Amino acid sequence: MKVDFPAVMDTVRVGLLGLGIVGSQVAERLECQRDLVTERTGGPVELTRVLVRDTAKRRAYLPTAAAITTDPAAVLEDPGIGVIIELMGGMEPARTYIERAIDAGKAVVTANKEVMAHHGPELLDLAKRRGVDVYFEAAVGGGIPLISTFKIDLLANQISRIEAVINGTTNFIIDRMARDGAGFDEALAEAQRLGYAEADPTYDVEGWDAVFKLTIMSSIAFRGRIDPDEVHREGIRGLDPVDFRYARDMGYAIRLLAYARDHGDEVELRVHPALLPQSHLLAAVHDAYNAVVIEGDLVGSVLLYGQGAGGRPTASAVVGDVIDLVLSMRKGIDNRIAVDIARPIRVRAMADVRTAAYLRLHVADRPGVLAEVARILGDLDISISAVVQKQAMVEHAAAELVILTHPAREGDLRTARERLAALETVYAVPAFLRALTPEEAM
Amino acid sequence: MKVDFPAVMDTVRVGLLGLGIVGSQVAERLECQRDLVTERTGGPVELTRVLVRDTAKRRAYLPTAAAITTDPAAVLEDPGIGVIIELMGGMEPARTYIERAIDAGKAVVTANKEVMAHHGPELLDLAKRRGVDVYFEAAVGGGIPLISTFKIDLLANQISRIEAVINGTTNFIIDRMARDGAGFDEALAEAQRLGYAEADPTYDVEGWDAVFKLTIMSSIAFRGRIDPDEVHREGIRGLDPVDFRYARDMGYAIRLLAYARDHGDEVELRVHPALLPQSHLLAAVHDAYNAVVIEGDLVGSVLLYGQGAGGRPTASAVVGDVIDLVLSMRKGIDNRIAVDIARPIRVRAMADVRTAAYLRLHVADRPGVLAEVARILGDLDISISAVVQKQAMVEHAAAELVILTHPAREGDLRTARERLAALETVYAVPAFLRALTPEEAM
Repeated sequence: MKVDFPAVMDTVRVGLLGLGIVGSQVAERLECQRDLVTERTGGPVELTRVLVRDTAKRRAYLPTAAAITTDPAAVLEDPGIGVIIELMGGMEPARTYIERAIDAGKAVVTANKEVMAHHGPELLDLAKRRGVDVYFEAAVGGGIPLISTFKIDLLANQISRIEAVINGTTNFIIDRMARDGAGFDEALAEAQRLGYAEADPTYDVEGWDAVFKLTIMSSIAFRGRIDPDEVHREGIRGLDPVDFRYARDMGYAIRLLAYARDHGDEVELRVHPALLPQSHLLAAVHDAYNAVVIEGDLVGSVLLYGQGAGGRPTASAVVGDVIDLVLSMRKGIDNRIAVDIARPIRVRAMADVRTAAYLRLHVADRPGVLAEVARILGDLDISISAVVQKQAMVEHAAAELVILTHPAREGDLRTARERLAALETVYAVPAFLRALTPEEAM
Repeated sequence: MKVDFPAVMDTVRVGLLGLGIVGSQVAERLECQRDLVTERTGGPVELTRVLVRDTAKRRAYLPTAAAITTDPAAVLEDPGIGVIIELMGGMEPARTYIERAIDAGKAVVTANKEVMAHHGPELLDLAKRRGVDVYFEAAVGGGIPLISTFKIDLLANQISRIEAVINGTTNFIIDRMARDGAGFDEALAEAQRLGYAEADPTYDVEGWDAVFKLTIMSSIAFRGRIDPDEVHREGIRGLDPVDFRYARDMGYAIRLLAYARDHGDEVELRVHPALLPQSHLLAAVHDAYNAVVIEGDLVGSVLLYGQGAGGRPTASAVVGDVIDLVLSMRKGIDNRIAVDIARPIRVRAMADVRTAAYLRLHVADRPGVLAEVARILGDLDISISAVVQKQAMVEHAAAELVILTHPAREGDLRTARERLAALETVYAVPAFLRALTPEEAM
């Protein structure tokens, strides 16, 4: 379907929803780098109206030419506005506003991972029917060009796997725990002090943010609709500094891993802390950085790395999308690359996933314990890659047993964990983590 | 300018020039993954004719549907062919064929870095006037999405710097020299045995390949015409295993660095071996892998990493370009993103570049030598970051002096090198390399 925009337009008018950290940077670039934007889109782009909740709030940048309003209709129903940038975050009213904008025939640029993970397919479908575009590069990985890589650059490939460190907050916390032996609470407090974590860190720490981003990437990579609620999700709250030390001794780092793998009839999707071999590319991702490794059948493994959040990197993606979009609008085209993600994708049940595991047990320090443990694992077809006995510093337990398994069925690993915990000689199983083996690494 | 292609076309016919390692993979993907290509471009794409020099030669894949010919006109002048893929490599006749294809109103996809580095600006200009597109993602970094990142994703940024390991052959050789202490000749022989280096390795080893790639990237990043002959170029032939050891002792790795930096009125462009801090992202690039770090004013630093060469990764970029191009052709559009690189860019004279340097001297082992050396450097305003005296294993010389300077003017560094070499107590200056300091690292 061709839109009715004239092929060349004088001025493209833009409405902005939200003037927070990212919104301020976007407004500043559009207003203060007008020449750059004009040159690169072949004509003027004007930030016309900005929606805020509270006009009295202090802003990092206050638009000089655009009108500030608290009335959504003033932006969404202005017939002169051709592009809406949504940077409010959260589900509602952002979702409704995006829908209204599309319905009104406006193109949309959004950084909203929550909306796109849950409602991307129907919003993209609506946009296609209305002959407008929805761009969302900023929803995943800040300024790292991920969406466009999946959507365009790797079009010749069948994507088989995604491995990602895609949440900066948790990576910052994990990095502190690994480097300084800090506990979770201490590392979280530091992250909050430095602005890497919110006052309520649930969204990041419990893995929701990573799940949304993985859902969006996978949906494009595997070309179908994924329900984010079906993605296995574990956060980093339960991590103990001792496991970072033991993991390192065995040649592993710990990361909050976002993992997707195509199995043909279904897709494996999971977000959880995982041991990665020290030689794994993602083991070298420190601080609040993000990195995504993509495996395609032609390209092999490609890694993209950068700042996955923050005002400026996210604004880079938002304004990049605006320029790209306006370039298309000026040529009179829409939906040049329409990724059809309507087909529902089946997510493999976590119990059926195969993964290596790391178990830490508090055991009685007497002969025969290891034999019992090995028998339970053996009965479930779980083979052991490494066992290390450590002196326990814990009440009741005389020793700590650290076990690294070869890949096995998750369901069997869980059964093993229960049976181990039920042994008279096993006092507790304080750690059960997944691992990528060096053989699995890309 | 709008082209006259109908907005929806039945079949897009493709002609291929060259059926070598990359060409075979491209032909195989187009013929054997017809469903994928059809689905992703919204209609059939047919490989119609393939130009080869020698029909008797054995091929990794022999097209089944396409006609093989040794007559260029049969491909270039076939009015039914809308897209020409050029994978012959080298300057001529590739350049002429690309020009003829554009002149005939055909879109072009090429992996030819030599042609694009030297003639990109006029070919793109000709294409614009003829209303067709020239895509060249595969010319730099194999399947790593570099051109599109500069051309589209980072459009909101002013690019300030590019740092890259962009030649796989030299990185493989350098990695062997660093890891195994192998000499250059030994490491080159291994690279040749394993297929990472050509029988005549000049093109890679002397830095030409990296210069062409840096020229193409910089030309888009800084939006202007760059003469590759003005890019400072040094190869890796002169590297000595001992410098890898000394560099490591000081916390550095050595890489063949491709470096570009915008100075406003002129651009700094150079390809040479360089010491990089071990913590630098490029120090972690091993074997024949490529990586490019891009610094933009909004995005900060982004790194893209992957296999920069080889049949399959390069075919990923070529077929990706074909799909992207056909998507546009089916919508009736051309030159959606027209990067204007006609404006000539002034390249900063190498003598005026500021860089840290690593010098290794064979000196007499007697008091006062270091004072003399320090005085020469001080006179030229070159300050010393580190000096290490090593026991020399070399004839005549009683000691080796290794000096790491702070950033200084290259012209002054060269003068210093000459003056040092002229000292009675300095027998030789066997190594003069540039370094990035940890402070300069991105």
